[in-house]
Amino acid sequence: MEKQILRWLREYLPATPATLIGPGDDAALLDWSDSDQCLIATDTIVEGLDFLLPTCALPNVGRKALAINLSDLAAMGAIPISATVSLVLPASDAFGTCREIIQGMQALAHEFGLSISGGDVSIWDGPLIATVTVLGKPGPGGVLTRNGAQEGDQLLVTGSLGGSILSHHYAFTPRLEEIVTLTSGYRIHAAIDISDGLELDLSRLAEASQLAARIDPTTVPVSTAAHDFVQGQSTGGTALQHALRDGEDFELLLAVAPDVAETLLRDQPIECGLTRIGDFATGDGVFTRFEDGSLKAVEPQGYVHGEKG
Amino acid sequence: MEKQILRWLREYLPATPATLIGPGDDAALLDWSDSDQCLIATDTIVEGLDFLLPTCALPNVGRKALAINLSDLAAMGAIPISATVSLVLPASDAFGTCREIIQGMQALAHEFGLSISGGDVSIWDGPLIATVTVLGKPGPGGVLTRNGAQEGDQLLVTGSLGGSILSHHYAFTPRLEEIVTLTSGYRIHAAIDISDGLELDLSRLAEASQLAARIDPTTVPVSTAAHDFVQGQSTGGTALQHALRDGEDFELLLAVAPDVAETLLRDQPIECGLTRIGDFATGDGVFTRFEDGSLKAVEPQGYVHGEKG
Repeated sequence: MEKQILRWLREYLPATPATLIGPGDDAALLDWSDSDQCLIATDTIVEGLDFLLPTCALPNVGRKALAINLSDLAAMGAIPISATVSLVLPASDAFGTCREIIQGMQALAHEFGLSISGGDVSIWDGPLIATVTVLGKPGPGGVLTRNGAQEGDQLLVTGSLGGSILSHHYAFTPRLEEIVTLTSGYRIHAAIDISDGLELDLSRLAEASQLAARIDPTTVPVSTAAHDFVQGQSTGGTALQHALRDGEDFELLLAVAPDVAETLLRDQPIECGLTRIGDFATGDGVFTRFEDGSLKAVEPQGYVHGEKG
Repeated sequence: MEKQILRWLREYLPATPATLIGPGDDAALLDWSDSDQCLIATDTIVEGLDFLLPTCALPNVGRKALAINLSDLAAMGAIPISATVSLVLPASDAFGTCREIIQGMQALAHEFGLSISGGDVSIWDGPLIATVTVLGKPGPGGVLTRNGAQEGDQLLVTGSLGGSILSHHYAFTPRLEEIVTLTSGYRIHAAIDISDGLELDLSRLAEASQLAARIDPTTVPVSTAAHDFVQGQSTGGTALQHALRDGEDFELLLAVAPDVAETLLRDQPIECGLTRIGDFATGDGVFTRFEDGSLKAVEPQGYVHGEKG
């Protein structure tokens, strides 16, 4: 079975211009002649924790396993070059499962011009687990980190937030093109992607930058999905609370200087939109700022489904 | 729990000179200024398939998860630079489990000068799963592949084979230093590491090189462990059969020109030893060559515990 899967993978996975040796040897070899730096990120998704079968179709599982990693690269301002994938497959129809996962993953890889350059397959009597590792190069604006926010910076967010569980969590498009557009034309001080919820991920950015972050809740762009989700539930909070705390939005939080924020909000250079939702000040922690200017400390809540090292 | 683990990982994992950004951001950033190429390999080990607990101590699980990947880099003639690790941890004592695994892994990483530059942790009510991805640069002799063997090449193997299940499968040292010594001074045509057994991995090298491989069985270096293992068993084949078919030896198979083989066997430049155990000829498949010169096709047997893409 493994041999059959291996052969299929070698034939199915296309090379890219960066591929010097693709799947089938002990390691893949990539051309790295046009960069002095290499970015690497990894993420695992586990059936039952991060997705449910058959609720989530297998190609969407593959797509998600790659997309969450690409979102990490986007948050670093990076351009993806290649990925490896390791699958732990349920013994019942391991080949069919692998094929559908890889097809979903490769479709996204193709969209962003990266290769899937190798991997590993294990078969067992257990749930499906997919680990993807991505490699990237710094984008046109260099590498973005979490620790670059400055006092007085404005807090911007791409797209809209909340209700990702309705479908966005496996159908989202990582903000790779958007971050290249942004870093090409504008100076971004710091970035993080929202994987565990706005409050929680903002607290990480603020902590790394040794600043306090203040959210103006009425300005937070609440997604249609968050409204839809709330309408379908008798309990569970408001749409805004979902926008503040739902995991897996995979939008980007950005810290930029006030004048850059002004320009960005006027230019609106990316299709998904950019919204100012707060700012940074001396201190630490995350705060809600009410319309009268008063602040209330937020105990960040979010969906912790794992943790990045 | 995840936050606790994360903090520990950030503090525990040391940087190396190549580390520009280590664990704690959305991706790690590595200095890649002294190479035009990047090698990447990944491998997963699963409790119950690849190791048993508590038979195998947790630091040895971590060591093995990294070592099998480093063995892949050795087979490419590469020098390791960094690794990422993704752990799916049993909920009972997830932190303690993580700590012991990472300690075992970091000890080996330190030995070979690479960094563990990031990772991901999931916690569940299931067995332990560890995925490691390694990055490397081409070594002094450039990149070795499986497809470079030439007609008339001699087949050499490092160390001795068989009986790895007694302890070698988690205690082995990947042949990284040996391959640098070899490629620095001698022209190696092709290489593969023995992860699934001599016969099986040799069949892969032969197939990739579009040649037949012939093993002279009396010359195969049989390890003490293979003899010990056979003595402890009433059935299960000879020590030689274990040397031919046991998985997880993680020695290297090399194809070299006859004159290079002669020099290597005379010089014996690596401490673990180099033995000539056969050669390559036109045709395909793997053959046993008896002392009268007759050949018998081998149906490669080995321990297929997964498969590399």
